[in-house]
This record gives sequence, C-alpha cells and structure tokens, in this order.
Amino acid sequence: MKPFCFGIDVGGTTIKLGCFRTDGTLLEKWEVPTRLEEGGKYIIPDAVKEVKAKMLSLGIGREEVQGVGIGVPGPVNDAGEVSRAVNLHWGYKNLVQEMEELLDMPVKAGNDANVAALGEMWQGAAKGCRNLIMVTLGTGVGGGIIVNGKIIAGTHGAAGEIGHACVEPSETERCNCGNYGCLEQMAAATGIVRLANKELEQSDEDSLLRKEKVTAKSVFDAYKQDDALASRVVRRFGEYLGNALAIFSCVVDPERIVIGGGVSKAGEVLISVIEPYFRRDAFPACKNIPIVLATLGNDAGIYGTAKLVLD
Amino acid sequence: MKPFCFGIDVGGTTIKLGCFRTDGTLLEKWEVPTRLEEGGKYIIPDAVKEVKAKMLSLGIGREEVQGVGIGVPGPVNDAGEVSRAVNLHWGYKNLVQEMEELLDMPVKAGNDANVAALGEMWQGAAKGCRNLIMVTLGTGVGGGIIVNGKIIAGTHGAAGEIGHACVEPSETERCNCGNYGCLEQMAAATGIVRLANKELEQSDEDSLLRKEKVTAKSVFDAYKQDDALASRVVRRFGEYLGNALAIFSCVVDPERIVIGGGVSKAGEVLISVIEPYFRRDAFPACKNIPIVLATLGNDAGIYGTAKLVLD
Repeated sequence: MKPFCFGIDVGGTTIKLGCFRTDGTLLEKWEVPTRLEEGGKYIIPDAVKEVKAKMLSLGIGREEVQGVGIGVPGPVNDAGEVSRAVNLHWGYKNLVQEMEELLDMPVKAGNDANVAALGEMWQGAAKGCRNLIMVTLGTGVGGGIIVNGKIIAGTHGAAGEIGHACVEPSETERCNCGNYGCLEQMAAATGIVRLANKELEQSDEDSLLRKEKVTAKSVFDAYKQDDALASRVVRRFGEYLGNALAIFSCVVDPERIVIGGGVSKAGEVLISVIEPYFRRDAFPACKNIPIVLATLGNDAGIYGTAKLVLD
Repeated sequence: MKPFCFGIDVGGTTIKLGCFRTDGTLLEKWEVPTRLEEGGKYIIPDAVKEVKAKMLSLGIGREEVQGVGIGVPGPVNDAGEVSRAVNLHWGYKNLVQEMEELLDMPVKAGNDANVAALGEMWQGAAKGCRNLIMVTLGTGVGGGIIVNGKIIAGTHGAAGEIGHACVEPSETERCNCGNYGCLEQMAAATGIVRLANKELEQSDEDSLLRKEKVTAKSVFDAYKQDDALASRVVRRFGEYLGNALAIFSCVVDPERIVIGGGVSKAGEVLISVIEPYFRRDAFPACKNIPIVLATLGNDAGIYGTAKLVLD
C-alpha cells in the first residue's frame, strides 16, 4: 500500500477534497466552487488541477499515491460510468476513464450517498463494522448499503436509493422521482416541513410553528418544547423512518444503522423518536441493531471516496 | 474443481438429497424422512449415511467430491453454526463441524430460503444473474438475497427474512414472530387464507369461497372465475407483496425477482397481480426489473446447497 490517497466529493455547489494517509489520517481538506457552466465540463479538470497542486505543495510524488476516489450525486456503475447527474448538469460520462487520463493514477468513483456510508465505516460512526445501512437526511434522503465491507451498487446503480422506498402508497403529492409516497417525502428536511405544513393547514391549533418559518430545525426545536402539533409531526416522521429502517434491516441485517445529513444535527433526540418504531417493527433478531448518529458530518464523502481506492 | 458434489435440504418432514456433477447436472435425487425424535439427533447422521451409501452405489470416491452442502430451516451464520432450528427440534448446533467430522469432506451450510435463491441462480429462473431477490410463498414467507453471486447472510443470520417486513403496523393479529403486520401475514398461503376469512366475515356477500374450504389455491381459483370477493383478497395480496418487493428493490437493486413456494403454483396469474403494484411503487431505475416464477420447485434447495460448495 502506498502512503497517500485523495478523496473528492463533488456536490452541486462545492467540490470538497481531502488528502489522506492510507492509514486513515486526514492531512488536509479544502474546497472549491463547482462550476456548472457548459454542461459541467470544468468539474473534472478543476478537481484534477486541485489534486495535482496539492501534491506539489505537499511534496507528494505520483508513485506515492494509492489512488484518487471521487463521489458524485447520481448513479455510478461498477465500471465508473455515470449515466446522468442532474445537479452537475452532466449527461453520460465515463468518469473514471476521464479522470485517469488526466491524472495518470488509479481512480475509483461512487455515488455520493454510498461513499458517505463507506466513510463512516472507515473512520466514523461505524468504524470496524462490515455491514451497514446509512441514511442521509438532507434536502432529500440518500442511502448507502455496505455488505461485507463493500458498497452495494446494484444492477442499475440504484442500490441504497432508500429515500425512494414507497412507504405511503396512498400519498397524493408526487415525489421528485415521479412516484407517490416516498420515504423522502416524509423524512427529508423538506419532507418534515411538508408534514408540518399539512398539520398546520388542517386546524387552527396553536403551535410554536405558527410563529416563524417552518424548517426541519424549527419542528425539532418546537418538539423539544413539547409543542403538541410539532410532536405529532415528529412522531409521524419517526414512525415512517423507524418502520422503513426495520424493513430494510430484514433485507440486509446490518451491524449498525447510521443516520447522517443536515437533519441529524437535531442530535440524539432524532434517535429517540426513530428507535421505538424501529424496535416495534424489526424482525426479532434485528431489534437490537444500534442506530447511531454519523460523526464525520460533511467530511464523510471525502473519507469514503479516499477509502474507495484502498479496497 | 472435482467432478461431483452433493446438496442436502433438511425440512421438518423430509430430508431431500441430490448428487450433482459440478457442472450443474443433477445425477440423482431422493429423500428420506426427517427423524425429529430426541432433539433431532439422528438428522445429521442419517444425511451422512445417505451420502456415503450413494457414493458407494455410484462408485464415487471421496477424492472426487468437491463437497457437501446442507440447508436447514433456521438462521445459519458464516461459520456454519445454527443458533436454533425449531422445526428440527434443534438448539445450538455447530452443523458444519459435526458434518465434516462424520464425512471427512468439506461441508458448507446455509438457511433453506437462502440456498433456494442460490439454486434458482445456478440452474433455475435466474440462471446467469448475479443479483437476485427470491421470495418463497409457502406456509410462511421466506426470502433469499444474492449480491454479486453470493448469499447475504447478515449480521444475525437474518438477512433475507423478508417475510417479516412490517408492511402493516396497524395490524391487530400477531405474527408467529411476535410482531404485528408482517408480510407473511398477508402473502403466505396462510396469510392469503387469513385475508380471505377477514373479507368473508365482514359481509354476507356471495362468493365461491363460501362453498368450500378456503385455501390459497381456492382463492386464486375463484379470482380466475372473477369472484368479486376473491378478487379483492387477491388485489390486497398483490398490493402488499408488490409494494414490499419495490421497497426491497431500492435497497439492493436486483437483476431479477424470483417467486417460488407452494403459492407460486397459481402460475403467471400471480405475477400479473403483483407486477402492477411493483411497477407503481418501484424507484424509476428499478421499475423494469423482471419478476419471474421459480422453475426448480422443491429441488431449489438441493441445487442451492450443492452450489454452496462450488464457490
């Protein structure tokens, strides 16, 4: 094993980069803006330029780098091809081949939610685990499934797309994916706001949520102050997510479940509202699977992509 | 690779055995009764005796056998240990070690529903696939998940226990597992009968199902004759199962879904009632995953256990 590796996490706003020792030590992290113009054609060259400049400034030679991992918001197949990444303005792209030609080093690519799971397994909340479900509660709901230490990509790059588990077939509002009743519509930050607005519309009941802009944070804050309406919203959220995690667990029977993303900033209270429903609905052998908060925050992606090149 | 292997599928009533060429050709299959007396202590010696006798009668030497696989109705961990197999009257058993000592050949063990999936992948309805969900609709609902050609066993041996996905948390009747609202309560042969009896109790509506004993078969037969009550039962069954398969698919994104077990004898009509709900609820990238009937019937277990020793 060579001593260094790089992880790159490409988002719609910034490209996050990290230079690691292959033992898991983060040496430096930094970010640059994601340039979306002209079909996102500058994204890969920008990332490559950053890696090369960092190698130069740290005095790292190419022969000392195990490889470079990159994560993108979209499905990535085992061959490192992206069929489409809407948020990057990309159509089809042979991501790994393009990067390898520019870098002349081994490159591996993965979906951003999947690599976040790998990062948490390597150096975060699931360190030492080999089987893991990670769910990322952000603007949407992402997921990553790890079995025997490896990300499951799936036949269509859609494994771990657990935000689109249909948990409420009778839902009348449409999800961004085109279906109705996806977990994302109940458990993403936007989903929690949606559930809250529904509750607010249904009655004139007094609530702290009528006094400010409704956000996932304000819902959890009101819940912590025993606001009755917010409590109903949070319990519905907890039941949808706890039940869904119980169903996912009878498929892959993970060692641990990790919850990350912006919503997880609510802290341990989040676990306390999910867990009772998970324990109620999980198969008996799975009832005691620990549900824990992610610990790497926004760095999970760079850790996970760096880990990609070590396997 | 040596030329021969054996597969053994232990059920609560019979032990099924098969002698295979390692290319997948079934040479001979036979069965003997499962002796449950004295805590099932005769089961392993009986199976071993059968294998040895068959080797003798076919003139197969020990050095020509790649190994012997065995499947049991209960969780089996990667080390080949069974924590408990109620239907065999077994408590903890180091299954692989016991068999290897008696046989002096390599032994591998797996859960019966998991190995059925492996069998269908090797020589059945999913031949050539590497990623698979198999659901077995029998007295209960079993499942097997295959990722990259390997069975997922799970941290507690509970991966693939999809019969206990909680699909109806508001259910008031208890499942055998102790939870409420498991898929098994809706989609097993017993589950279909349960749904039908509920419908029959709720009204005096005329139905073919009032004229004979209600079984999963009689429900599907009445459905084929456009019986209105049976049609509602079959549609509920189809919606529960189709929705659940869609959820499982966003976790592992399989290449194919195989439906086996006694209920699958209803034939293609079964697929026709599951598929519309699956297509409705599946993540867009997964909507066209083929759902097919198992083809190996009761032999899936011996095929799958034989395949266990080839990997």
